[in-house]
Amino acid sequence: MNVLILLDFAGVSVFAATGALAASRKQLDIVGFMFLACATGVGGGTFRDLVLGRTPVFWVSEPAYLLVCAATAVLLYFTAHMMESRYRILLWLDAVGLAAFCAMGAAVGLNATGSSAIAIVTGMATATFGGILRDILAGEKSVLLRPEIYVSAAAAGAALYTIADTAGAPSGVSALLAMAFAFVIRGGALVFGWTLPSYRARAGRTESELLRDGIVSPPPSNSDN
Amino acid sequence: MNVLILLDFAGVSVFAATGALAASRKQLDIVGFMFLACATGVGGGTFRDLVLGRTPVFWVSEPAYLLVCAATAVLLYFTAHMMESRYRILLWLDAVGLAAFCAMGAAVGLNATGSSAIAIVTGMATATFGGILRDILAGEKSVLLRPEIYVSAAAAGAALYTIADTAGAPSGVSALLAMAFAFVIRGGALVFGWTLPSYRARAGRTESELLRDGIVSPPPSNSDN
Amino acid sequence: MNVLILLDFAGVSVFAATGALAASRKQLDIVGFMFLACATGVGGGTFRDLVLGRTPVFWVSEPAYLLVCAATAVLLYFTAHMMESRYRILLWLDAVGLAAFCAMGAAVGLNATGSSAIAIVTGMATATFGGILRDILAGEKSVLLRPEIYVSAAAAGAALYTIADTAGAPSGVSALLAMAFAFVIRGGALVFGWTLPSYRARAGRTESELLRDGIVSPPPSNSDN
Repeated sequence: MNVLILLDFAGVSVFAATGALAASRKQLDIVGFMFLACATGVGGGTFRDLVLGRTPVFWVSEPAYLLVCAATAVLLYFTAHMMESRYRILLWLDAVGLAAFCAMGAAVGLNATGSSAIAIVTGMATATFGGILRDILAGEKSVLLRPEIYVSAAAAGAALYTIADTAGAPSGVSALLAMAFAFVIRGGALVFGWTLPSYRARAGRTESELLRDGIVSPPPSNSDN
Repeated sequence: MNVLILLDFAGVSVFAATGALAASRKQLDIVGFMFLACATGVGGGTFRDLVLGRTPVFWVSEPAYLLVCAATAVLLYFTAHMMESRYRILLWLDAVGLAAFCAMGAAVGLNATGSSAIAIVTGMATATFGGILRDILAGEKSVLLRPEIYVSAAAAGAALYTIADTAGAPSGVSALLAMAFAFVIRGGALVFGWTLPSYRARAGRTESELLRDGIVSPPPSNSDN
Repeated sequence: MNVLILLDFAGVSVFAATGALAASRKQLDIVGFMFLACATGVGGGTFRDLVLGRTPVFWVSEPAYLLVCAATAVLLYFTAHMMESRYRILLWLDAVGLAAFCAMGAAVGLNATGSSAIAIVTGMATATFGGILRDILAGEKSVLLRPEIYVSAAAAGAALYTIADTAGAPSGVSALLAMAFAFVIRGGALVFGWTLPSYRARAGRTESELLRDGIVSPPPSNSDN
C-alpha cells in the first residue's frame, strides 16, 4: 500500500512537472507555473472523482497533493532551462506517470462501481485528462491529436488491470502488471515511434467522383481556349 | 417511457457520430475516434448531472451509453469516408440529437429542482455542451461561435418543455412538443440559413469620433505634402 | 452579511459583463451573449462547488444568479458599442469582481475544509476560472498566458483572507482586507503594468553549448569553401 501511495505522489509530481514545462515554454511567472502544475497534476484524478461522485475530491481531502505540485513548479521555475535540454527524460517520467495513473484510475473506478467498462474509462481519463487540460490551458496542440500512441497505452493498461483484478489477482499485482504493460507500450511509442493506423479518407477520389459528389465545381466551359 | 429511452440512446449515438467525424477530420486512430465519440456523446449529460449533484453520473450508472459511443466510433472509423460525402445527413441527425437532448435535459432539471430557469439552462447545456467540448478537444472553431442558430434552438425547445410541463401536459407530450419545436428551428437554420441578428458595433464611428475616443492616432501633421 | 451578498451578485454581474463583451467581439447573437455571460459569471463558483462536493451548485439552488447574468448580457447586447470605447472601465470592474471572488472563494473553501491550502486554491480558482473559461469558449488567448499580474492578485487576496481569518478576525473584516489587497495589486498591474518576473531560458546558450546539447546540428563540414 505504501508503494502505491508513493507511486501516486510520484505520478502527480511528474505530471505537475510537464505542466511547469508548458509554463516555461509560455514564459509565465511563478504563479503561472504553479497553476499549470496543479491543473496537470491533479486534473485527471479530479475528473475521475467528480464523475464517480467521490467528493470532496482527493486533493481537497489531502492538500499534500497540491503542495507537491507547487513544490515541483518552484523547482522547475529555477531549473527548467536544464530540463528543456533533457526533454527526453521528462517524456519518460511522463510515461511513468501515465502508467501509474491508468492502473490507479482503473482500481478506483472498479472499486466504486464494479463495472469493467467504467474502470477502463476512469483509468484512461485519470491518465490522460491532466495532459489534455494542460494543452488547452497553455494553448498548445492537444496531446490527443498527436499521432503517436498515448491514450491507447493508458486504455491498454487500464484494461489489463481490470482483467487481472477480475481474474482474482491481488490489487497490487494487478496494478504492477498494468503499469508495466502501459509503460512498455508508451515506451515503445517513444523509442520506435509506434502508432496505431490512423484514419485515412478513401484513397483519392477521382476528379469525376468529386464532381459527382459535389465536392468540386465543374470547370468553366469555354473549352475553345 | 421506452420511446424516451430509445430517443436518449439515439441522441447519444448521433452526437457520438459527430465526435467520430471530428476525429476523422483530424486523422486520429481508432482510440482517438472512441475518445472524441464518448466525450461528445455523454459530455452534455455529464455536465447536467454534475451541477445537479446527480452522481455518479448517468454513464457510470449505465455503462451501455459508453458502449454505444464506442460502437458508433468503430462503425464510423470504417465508414466515415462515406459519411463525409453525406455530411448533410449527419447535420440532420445532429439536429435530432439536439432536439432530443434539450427536452430530456429540461425534464431532468425540472424534476430535480422545480425551477424553470434551471430547466432551460440544463436543457440548453445538455444539448450543446457535448458539441462545444468536441470542438475544443479537436481544436476546431467552436459551434458556439458560428452564426447559424444552434444554441438558440436548444433554448427554445427547453423553454417549450418547461412551459408545457408547467401547464400540466404529460411528460411525454411535453418532450415531443419541445423536440419538434427545437428540430423545426434548427432545421430551418440548416435549410434557410436562419440566424438571429448578431451584435454589430454601432454603424461606423466617424474618423473624428475614433480620434476622440483614442481608437486611432492622429495622422502625422506634415500637412504641406 | 447583506453587504457580502450584494458583493457576490456584483462580482457575478461584472464577470458576466466581461463574457458579454467577449461575445460582442465575436459578433454573436443575443443567446450567445447570454451563454458567455453565464459561463463567465458563474464558472468559477461552479468549479469551487463541484470540487468541494457542494451540490447542487450555487446557481441551481439560487437561479437569481443566472437571471443577473442574462440581464447583464441583454444590457450589454444593446450597449456594448459604448462599453468597448470604455474598456478601461470594464477592466476596473473586473478587478472588483476578482477581488470580491478571491475573498469569498477562500471563505467558502476554509469553512468547508478548514485547510489553508484549499482556501487559497478555491479563492484563486473562484476568481479566475470564469475568465479562463470565457477565453477558451470565445477562442481568445487565455488571460492565464498574459504577462500582467492577474492570477497572482487572486492568490494574494485569498492568502490574506486565510491569514486574517486564522488570526481570529471576523469574516467580514477578513473579506474586506483581502478584497482591498487583491484590488490594490490588480489595480497596480493595470495602472503601472506590474508583472512578476517571468521565466526566461538561461541567457543565450552559446553555439558550442547548443551543439553539445544536440539542439542544433553541426554545420556541413565542407570547410574549404
